[in-house]
Order: sequence, then structure tokens, then C-alpha cells
Amino acid sequence: MTAKSQVKWTDDALTVLKAPDGFRLDALDPAATPGYGGDKKDGAIDLAAGLAQLADFQERLFADSHAGDGEDSVLLVLQAMDSAGKGGIVRHVVGGVDPQGVELAAFKAPTPEELEHDFLWRIERRVPRPGFIGVFDRSHYEDVLIGRVRELAPAEEIERRYDAINDFERRLVERGTRIVKVMLHISYDEQGDRLMERLERPDKHWKYNPGDVDERELWPAYQQAYQTVFERTSTAAAPWYVVPANRKWYARLAVQELLLETLEGVDPQWPAADFDVEAEKERLRATLR
Amino acid sequence: MTAKSQVKWTDDALTVLKAPDGFRLDALDPAATPGYGGDKKDGAIDLAAGLAQLADFQERLFADSHAGDGEDSVLLVLQAMDSAGKGGIVRHVVGGVDPQGVELAAFKAPTPEELEHDFLWRIERRVPRPGFIGVFDRSHYEDVLIGRVRELAPAEEIERRYDAINDFERRLVERGTRIVKVMLHISYDEQGDRLMERLERPDKHWKYNPGDVDERELWPAYQQAYQTVFERTSTAAAPWYVVPANRKWYARLAVQELLLETLEGVDPQWPAADFDVEAEKERLRATLR
Repeated sequence: MTAKSQVKWTDDALTVLKAPDGFRLDALDPAATPGYGGDKKDGAIDLAAGLAQLADFQERLFADSHAGDGEDSVLLVLQAMDSAGKGGIVRHVVGGVDPQGVELAAFKAPTPEELEHDFLWRIERRVPRPGFIGVFDRSHYEDVLIGRVRELAPAEEIERRYDAINDFERRLVERGTRIVKVMLHISYDEQGDRLMERLERPDKHWKYNPGDVDERELWPAYQQAYQTVFERTSTAAAPWYVVPANRKWYARLAVQELLLETLEGVDPQWPAADFDVEAEKERLRATLR
Repeated sequence: MTAKSQVKWTDDALTVLKAPDGFRLDALDPAATPGYGGDKKDGAIDLAAGLAQLADFQERLFADSHAGDGEDSVLLVLQAMDSAGKGGIVRHVVGGVDPQGVELAAFKAPTPEELEHDFLWRIERRVPRPGFIGVFDRSHYEDVLIGRVRELAPAEEIERRYDAINDFERRLVERGTRIVKVMLHISYDEQGDRLMERLERPDKHWKYNPGDVDERELWPAYQQAYQTVFERTSTAAAPWYVVPANRKWYARLAVQELLLETLEGVDPQWPAADFDVEAEKERLRATLR
């Protein structure tokens, strides 16, 4: 638990949501609320309290790296099936933080230039600088998810990528990045409802793509691809967290809590002045009228 | 006025804050609240109401360009003397918008690579894509402000830049970008107070830089450089808006209002579906259990 205002967390989210050895995605109820003892109403209160905490942590993280010697950064990786709520996480969790301290990267289908390079080339260019909270809306994991399901690369290339990802992420961690890899887990039925809602509301049509149903038809293959991702890339340096996401309020609260606990681990401090404060006061006073 | 909830605006901000021909910066009271009939308390209510409006406009702008044929974008350019409140504008005005629709660029002292190119090279790379709200925290105007005051380039090069800026901005406007150029105008005394506060609070030391006093000592030269900027680059395509900023609440409200009125001019609409909605409902229904 990060603070007294977060009264309804009964366990650390970093503990209860981690995908451990032997984790089975198909055994996790997408409607569950692990670690949280409250209901939707409690969740709204805790989410609001958490926003203020997250904003404070972010400012300290930023300050420590910009004026101090902090080299820490945080990277939130968001992966999910369509409509699972990545956008809502960005809007309602990340959106509460000063935009000056956030670096958001949304990875779409690779461009021709990106395809000429190794799959991690475009990823490396978007990792957060020290002091920043980076957010990946989709990521290098697409290259072992849709890449595997749609056979966009030979099987041995897909195999190569798991180890390459682990090496890449370990390097980031060694340089001071805390990686929080989140899969938002919704049920097949919930996705059907959410896609239908997009079709029924004219102001949501722009969010719908006929390709969404094509991907949905491959649901079992995607679930298996995620299962393999957890088995191959949930490392000590960068474990996966699987967040049940049928209840949007819980998913947002849980991702916020994962970030709060991670930043609590960083514990960024206001940096000491690297100038003589009293001398500067004197200089400034001399300019006052 | 953009909407009924904005009860205290008595005039369009785009009108009353524009720097017209003959505008004199030294004649504008930095503590004034032009166009707004309310006080700080009213301002807080109107700012909160405006956040929801701005978020709605942003989502439509984004949707229209991503699923429709909209080519519009908005570019907010923020310029000011140190401590005038650019950061607060980003946090409290821009921060209310979905981060997925914002592209923020903070321009610091140019890197060696940037210095090898024309001064607009690094700027061009950060202009917003269609559908986005771009925000420049400092900008190409630094090259005719500190560039002029500190004589970082020969006088004829500084002269060349004003016309280059006007050509550059007109090109952006022709391609669909609405440019909102804002100078936050604080008084010399107010800056002194704000810098002193940074020195007095340990949690603000990281925001202080001894160079801030060096720049402050050149205050009259900077005011003159801004005056010249308004005279040379407040064009029909991209006029300057000068926002009195001694009262932070007013400055934030005014910049929000400038964005709201600009987006009201764009009037982005939810795009029509580019697929057969009923056929897609059928396809989706076939996947439901």
C-alpha cells in the first residue's frame, strides 16, 4: 500500500498482479479485482487520491534528474486485445501527470523504413530519458504477438525475438529504467460488447476498424501468444503484470497503483541546490526595486 | 464567448488579446484581466468548465483527422520571460486534454547538431500532425529574442529570421495548422518575487538557475526584443496574443479561452463511418456466443 489514503488496497499490486512462473492466463478471471477490497465507488476515491500522489512523485523524479544526479525513469508498457482500455489508462491515469514529464509513444504498424531495421530499432528511439515517465501504447511485444499469430516473420525469427527482448529490457533496467509491463486482460464476451457499442454510437464509429473483427476471430491464437510472452519474457528484471480489465475502474486503479508502488521504490528526492543559495539571494536582491 | 458556462467572458479573447498594429507592450498592464469580468473564484469555475470543453474539442479534432479527412491541427506557441508561468499553462490547461492528442516540444538551447542547420530545422521536425494539438514551450522566437539580446548571430541574420518565420508560419497555416502565439506578460517586480520564492523554498531550488538573474539584468533589452517581434511577426495568418500574466489564474483561463475559440473556429465533427455499419454489426454478431 502506498499511502494511508489508499485504504482499500489489501495487498501490493506489484505482488498480486505479477505473472509468476507457472502463470496461466486462462485461469485468471477478467472480472476479478485482485488485491483491492473496495468497490467501484471506493475506487473512484482512491483513483483521485492517487492522481495527486502520482503527480508529486513525477515532479520529484523530474527534478531529481534535471537538477540532481538521478538517472531513474519509468516505462509503462501497455499491451492488450482491442478495446481492453489502453486509451482509458492513458487518459485517466497518465493524464493526471504533468505532460512535461511524460513521453508517450503509440506504436502502430511499422513503416517501410522501420521494417528495414531490426524490430527494436524504433523502440530504442522512444525509450524515456532519465526523469521521465515513458508510456508505450503497444510496443515491441506486437512483434511476438501479431507477428506470431499472423506469421509476419519466420518462426525462427519470432523465437529469436524473445531473447532479444529480454536482453534489451535488461539493458534498460541496468541504466535506471523501471519497466512496468502491463497486459490488460478482458474476456472474449466483454470485447464483443465493447466493439458492438462502438458500432452502435456514431461518435464512436471512428474508433472502429473492420480489422478488429478479423483479429477477434483469432482470439484463441492471441491468448496463446500472450501465454508464451509471459513464459518467455516475464523476467526478474522486467516481470509482467496481468490486470483483469473487464471492470474499467479496477484496471485504471490497478495500473495507477503499479506506478505508485514503482515510484515509491525509486523514492525520488528534491535535489540539493548546485549553487550558493544565499549568494543568489543577494544577487537577486540587487535587482529588486 | 465559447459557451454558456463561460459566463464571465465579456469579449472574445482572440479579439481583446491580439497585438494589433501599433501595439505597445509597455502600455499593457501585466496585472490586467482583459475581456474577463469575473474574479479569481469565477475563473476557477470557468477553467474547470473549459477543461471539459477543450477535451471534447480535442477528441473531435483527433477523430476527424484519423478516421475522416480533417487536416486541421492547432499549434500553441508559448513565449515568456522566466517564471512567467509557461509550465503552469502546460500543466493546468494542456494537462486537461488527453495526452494521446497532444504533441509537446520544449525547446532548450540548441544542440551542436541543431546549430549546424537553419534555426527552423529543429522546429519543422516538431510541428503537430493533423488532428493534434501541438505545444511549443519556447520556440523559433528564441532565435530572435535571446539571439538578438545576446548577439548570438549577426544583425543581418537576425533580420533575415523575421521574414523566414513569417514565411514558415504562413506555410503551416496554409496546410491547416491554426497557430496561437502567446506571450505571457509579467512585470519586472513580479518576476523578482517569483524568483525569490524559488530561492526560499528548497523544493523549488531545482527550478532556479543562476543564469535567470543574468537574463533578468537584461530586462529592458528583452522587452524591446519582444516589441520588435510583435511588430515584425504579428501577421494576419498568425497574429500574436499578449496575455497579462501577473495573475496566474487569469493567464491560464485566457490561454484556455484562446484555444477554445480557435477550436470553435475549426469546428471539428465526428467523422462518418468509412465502412458499412450494418454489415459490420452482422460480422460482429456472428462472433458473439
